[in-house]
Amino acid sequence: MDKILDSIETFKERYLEDLKEFLKISSVSADSNYEKDTRKCAEFLRDHCEKIGLENSRIFETKGYPIVYADYCHAPNKPTVLLYGHYDVQPPDPINLWETPPFEPTERNGSLYARGVSDDKGQVYCHLKAIQTWLKEEGNLPVNIKLLIEGEEEIGSPNLAPFINQNKEHLKADTALISDTPMYSPTRPSICYSLRGMVYIELFVTGPSHDLHSGQHGGVVQNPIQALAEIIGKLKDQDQKVLIPGFYDDVNPISESRSLEIRKLEIDESDYKKSMGVNTLVGEPDFSINERKWLRPTLDCNGIQGGYIGEGAKTIIPSKASAKISMRLVANQDPKKIVTLFNDYIQSIKPAGISIEIKEYAGAYPAVVDTTSEAITAGLAALKKAFGYNPILQGEGGTIPVVVDLKKILGLETVLMGFNLPDDGIHSPNERFKIDHYYKGIKASAIFFKELSERWG
Amino acid sequence: MDKILDSIETFKERYLEDLKEFLKISSVSADSNYEKDTRKCAEFLRDHCEKIGLENSRIFETKGYPIVYADYCHAPNKPTVLLYGHYDVQPPDPINLWETPPFEPTERNGSLYARGVSDDKGQVYCHLKAIQTWLKEEGNLPVNIKLLIEGEEEIGSPNLAPFINQNKEHLKADTALISDTPMYSPTRPSICYSLRGMVYIELFVTGPSHDLHSGQHGGVVQNPIQALAEIIGKLKDQDQKVLIPGFYDDVNPISESRSLEIRKLEIDESDYKKSMGVNTLVGEPDFSINERKWLRPTLDCNGIQGGYIGEGAKTIIPSKASAKISMRLVANQDPKKIVTLFNDYIQSIKPAGISIEIKEYAGAYPAVVDTTSEAITAGLAALKKAFGYNPILQGEGGTIPVVVDLKKILGLETVLMGFNLPDDGIHSPNERFKIDHYYKGIKASAIFFKELSERWG
Repeated sequence: MDKILDSIETFKERYLEDLKEFLKISSVSADSNYEKDTRKCAEFLRDHCEKIGLENSRIFETKGYPIVYADYCHAPNKPTVLLYGHYDVQPPDPINLWETPPFEPTERNGSLYARGVSDDKGQVYCHLKAIQTWLKEEGNLPVNIKLLIEGEEEIGSPNLAPFINQNKEHLKADTALISDTPMYSPTRPSICYSLRGMVYIELFVTGPSHDLHSGQHGGVVQNPIQALAEIIGKLKDQDQKVLIPGFYDDVNPISESRSLEIRKLEIDESDYKKSMGVNTLVGEPDFSINERKWLRPTLDCNGIQGGYIGEGAKTIIPSKASAKISMRLVANQDPKKIVTLFNDYIQSIKPAGISIEIKEYAGAYPAVVDTTSEAITAGLAALKKAFGYNPILQGEGGTIPVVVDLKKILGLETVLMGFNLPDDGIHSPNERFKIDHYYKGIKASAIFFKELSERWG
Repeated sequence: MDKILDSIETFKERYLEDLKEFLKISSVSADSNYEKDTRKCAEFLRDHCEKIGLENSRIFETKGYPIVYADYCHAPNKPTVLLYGHYDVQPPDPINLWETPPFEPTERNGSLYARGVSDDKGQVYCHLKAIQTWLKEEGNLPVNIKLLIEGEEEIGSPNLAPFINQNKEHLKADTALISDTPMYSPTRPSICYSLRGMVYIELFVTGPSHDLHSGQHGGVVQNPIQALAEIIGKLKDQDQKVLIPGFYDDVNPISESRSLEIRKLEIDESDYKKSMGVNTLVGEPDFSINERKWLRPTLDCNGIQGGYIGEGAKTIIPSKASAKISMRLVANQDPKKIVTLFNDYIQSIKPAGISIEIKEYAGAYPAVVDTTSEAITAGLAALKKAFGYNPILQGEGGTIPVVVDLKKILGLETVLMGFNLPDDGIHSPNERFKIDHYYKGIKASAIFFKELSERWG
């Protein structure tokens, strides 16, 4: 194992340069303006897999962006790891807030800054560079590996489950491995036991058929911005409790032991507030901060738009207003049921004089992971050796839809072992990844393969 | 007089072409991207005044866009008319809803379509073409004329009152004339007796210092869109009553006689709804439709913006959200007092975890006009002769700040005699002006000068 770790140490700067090339490709799946680059990114990744010695590197076309596959299965009687990641990234908006351009990776204060560097390109490369090192130094891997890297994670993975369904045999494995979640803190590497699910909705409100002069007609026409604001105002109360009837019906209560375990985790509230740039935390008073983020469902407006948003004053009653709204779900909430409850509620609180259209984006079920598996034990051991701190188990507020699909379709448990930090600004301007964590992530991945190989069966 | 009217009839097509040249200049005062064109428009207008025979044509610079002045004062012992109008126009957004480009004037179904054709370039040209005809045919005007055409009406005329104050002697007149209001209907030409005032505010809400991942942090951070929506939701009730404490304190009650007079005016509710493209009218139940629009104050959101408004799904808690909000005021509401009441109320209902900044745009006092003057009588006579229908007196929901300034600073009563129709889509895409009304407006203006000259003193 020392030979592998020494080799990683020797080649780490080259591995960092390799990552930068991957980050330069603006693979924004949510915005069709980036379509060409997103497709280019898939090809780049396929070529890179081939270059580092993986076999059967290829692109699978889908109805949306392609899936990149590669494998290396030359460890008979050893477990097969299905490694999932994504090569697509969040939109870079608001682009003017980036200190350096989002697709020009820049080193600053020990971190690498670029869109997608933590979410998820940097973490995908931790594994690729670990594989590259094993193959270079030992000519083989201690486990069998299958790579499944998609390009639509940031838009809800609409084509992934069908693909997995159609390729069950091909993707057969013993455990899944995903690095797309943060560690708890720099001194607390962690493995996740739960992910929240998601419902993403866009609400379109139409008032008059065209913009009206607010002087000539103000007082007799319903204003769609006003109506939309009233609707949004009725979605949550001051304690962030969601007011949709039935919303909490299927929420699992948090067990006393888990609650105690969570409340024992150190959390520096003042640091946490500072990292987000807020003065006050809000939320359900009966739950601790981590419980609110990991094990309670939430609702957030992600965007709103209507009327005149240019410079200066324009006096209109606009024709249209719209909002993007996402809900994070926890076990055992069902995204389909939540959409129905949402729609029913909106219809029941709809003000007079407007019409409403609801567009539903891909939903995701919440995921809960079995923490007693040998793979999790191997992951915890790898984290401890690579990072030098005792790892913990934690929940996670984000959503990785594939975890549920891997379990449902392939019967796989997933090891959620991520290497970035909570304040790395994923989905924000100036997203970053500590360069040191990139190197330690490569080592953790390399050790994980070995640990898993030894512990298996 | 027949000679004048015959001449207008003879040259009307040329007068229409002249107007088109004026409309081609995109003089959008609210958006600094149009600054060059807005300045060009002032120069174009000055040159045109000179060309048609007006004297002392010149541009007065202000802190913002220039004011165009011209006069023709060769009617001793006759009244002097101060003619006010504006050469700036509303922004053309949403530009994709225009059937033909906003700055390429197009004739269609008997109307001319272009941004500003009704508000106010077409109406300004009614008077210029009337003056041109008088000077061409008679070599003089029956009254003295001073022209005051500004370029900042659509942004609240911030530099007009100071200009009038500094040029009191220069602008001395006996009555003011403004064509910037619509007729009641095609068969009901009208003169306005009241205009609503305005307060225009932009509300900026800041939550976290940067956009956050809504999964990782959702549940503990106040969302600025949510906060803004809650604030807006508390500005009005379902009956459109404004909920700001003290908002109605200074509102003049509507006299019984005026209310009766208003309720006698024919109004086809179904036609009115159709023209706006709405199914339902809303508003204060105790007031008739015209009362709500003319003599009751209102509040409308003119624009809202926050978070991700691009294509597809992006899961963030945004850092910022903002809204543009205007209030229309009636006598005797004071815009300064209303701003204070608004600010106090916002502070009192502000949700936790956000900060608020309020930007105030230029306000305007409501205006009430003396309907017993000789100038109004002359206007009513001119409308009857030009349009062939009995004119009425009416209120108006829009705002023309200068009316109050002309009274306060110069002691002038204003004749508010407009020629366009309520459904001409001012401030909307596909703004239009009936070509026939343009011609009749020129005639009405020409007759007005004569009528006023004869009735005066």
